[in-house]
Amino acid sequence: MSQNQAEICELYYWQSLQGRGEFVRLILEDTATPYIDVCRQPEAEGGGISHIMAFRNGEKAGHPIFAPPILKVGDVIINQTPNICRFLGERLGLVPNEEAARLYANQIMLTINDLLVAVHDTHHPVATNLYYEEQKEAALERAYHFHQERLPKLISYFEKVLAYNEGYTLVGKETSYVDLMMFQMLVGLNYAFPKSFQKVSPDIPRLLQLRDAVAQRPRIKAYLQSPRRIPFNENGIFRHYPELDLKD
Amino acid sequence: MSQNQAEICELYYWQSLQGRGEFVRLILEDTATPYIDVCRQPEAEGGGISHIMAFRNGEKAGHPIFAPPILKVGDVIINQTPNICRFLGERLGLVPNEEAARLYANQIMLTINDLLVAVHDTHHPVATNLYYEEQKEAALERAYHFHQERLPKLISYFEKVLAYNEGYTLVGKETSYVDLMMFQMLVGLNYAFPKSFQKVSPDIPRLLQLRDAVAQRPRIKAYLQSPRRIPFNENGIFRHYPELDLKD
Repeated sequence: MSQNQAEICELYYWQSLQGRGEFVRLILEDTATPYIDVCRQPEAEGGGISHIMAFRNGEKAGHPIFAPPILKVGDVIINQTPNICRFLGERLGLVPNEEAARLYANQIMLTINDLLVAVHDTHHPVATNLYYEEQKEAALERAYHFHQERLPKLISYFEKVLAYNEGYTLVGKETSYVDLMMFQMLVGLNYAFPKSFQKVSPDIPRLLQLRDAVAQRPRIKAYLQSPRRIPFNENGIFRHYPELDLKD
Repeated sequence: MSQNQAEICELYYWQSLQGRGEFVRLILEDTATPYIDVCRQPEAEGGGISHIMAFRNGEKAGHPIFAPPILKVGDVIINQTPNICRFLGERLGLVPNEEAARLYANQIMLTINDLLVAVHDTHHPVATNLYYEEQKEAALERAYHFHQERLPKLISYFEKVLAYNEGYTLVGKETSYVDLMMFQMLVGLNYAFPKSFQKVSPDIPRLLQLRDAVAQRPRIKAYLQSPRRIPFNENGIFRHYPELDLKD
């Protein structure tokens, strides 16, 4: 990806939460790719979330976009988190060159995305447009089964992927964009469900090493300590509602 | 994709339901790509679902695969429906060549996949490993909101995509793999929720034309009338439980 001024990436995402935008930010930060987090800029300087409405209406991209994150690179406008992450990973060298490895990386990315949807639905099992408080009963039930079944099953799958790769990277021998995604998943799970994460931790030694290795990458480390990293909060996907965590 | 014997595609998916495997089958059928629906072959001839366990264990692919559908083409083994469909669409000429169009096609595919998850969760809002009957109360609630909010919002988004493209194809001017996916979504919605589909139909004239046009493609038409097309049933994603449809 050319690094000239015209090609500075523009990320469009909600202002006050990590959400799906965070997966994109981690790739941009790790590769020191110049980008503007557009909606987080002051409105007087062209920021604000009105951009997202303009994308939805089709005004900004020539076609309508259902939901952010949205990435603009030169003339190319990309939507859907796994689509953006694959695009950036391949352009920025954060994945091996071979087609088989790239297909495998995309497969793992999509499986991480499935887990992300499962995490989201622990607090929104009935409808996205209702508040958590309006669907709390179903949420308690869904969260229970998430800790009992879905989380252990998926997380042990990813641990097995690492074991098969004989290392601490999911695809190939170098850190790829999929490892950055997995890092975010692991720290998010630990924020939202500390007890449940504690319980699965003994079974995922390789994943924990992956997480620690990513956290130590110089640019990721600097980013996590910067004001650009929005703290986890209860507007995002990973929400810490103690009643939805594993019971003692 | 080479059509020689060694390259015959092998599809691995559950035997008795359309499910996510159907999105792959439609592409293979429309392009007259030779394939074997492996698990549906008699066990005495190498069929059966034990293959899926072998993929899960990592035995068959050199890495573990979480869930079918799985496609084997020569030495390449691909998993995750949007990953397989994109791969086949690009290989088989069922999508424009330009990168921007391919990214847009993948974006729409992933949004169709989001709708598919929402459909699945109408009958499984609490846990995938529980029976529908065990989560019926939450299902009734989730289905209500699906018909009120999620379905109209997503389906009108896809209608808008067609309007922006000034035609009856979602991406470019020729039928692409994304149109085949949308066809399956529309006939599936009509099977599962005939009343709800009836209600949204006046608002989606272009989508209905897309559906009818795909159904008339000679190979799709032949496929739909063949025994290879498994009928919709209540083991799949699109399940007709009248109580989950829109109320009169």
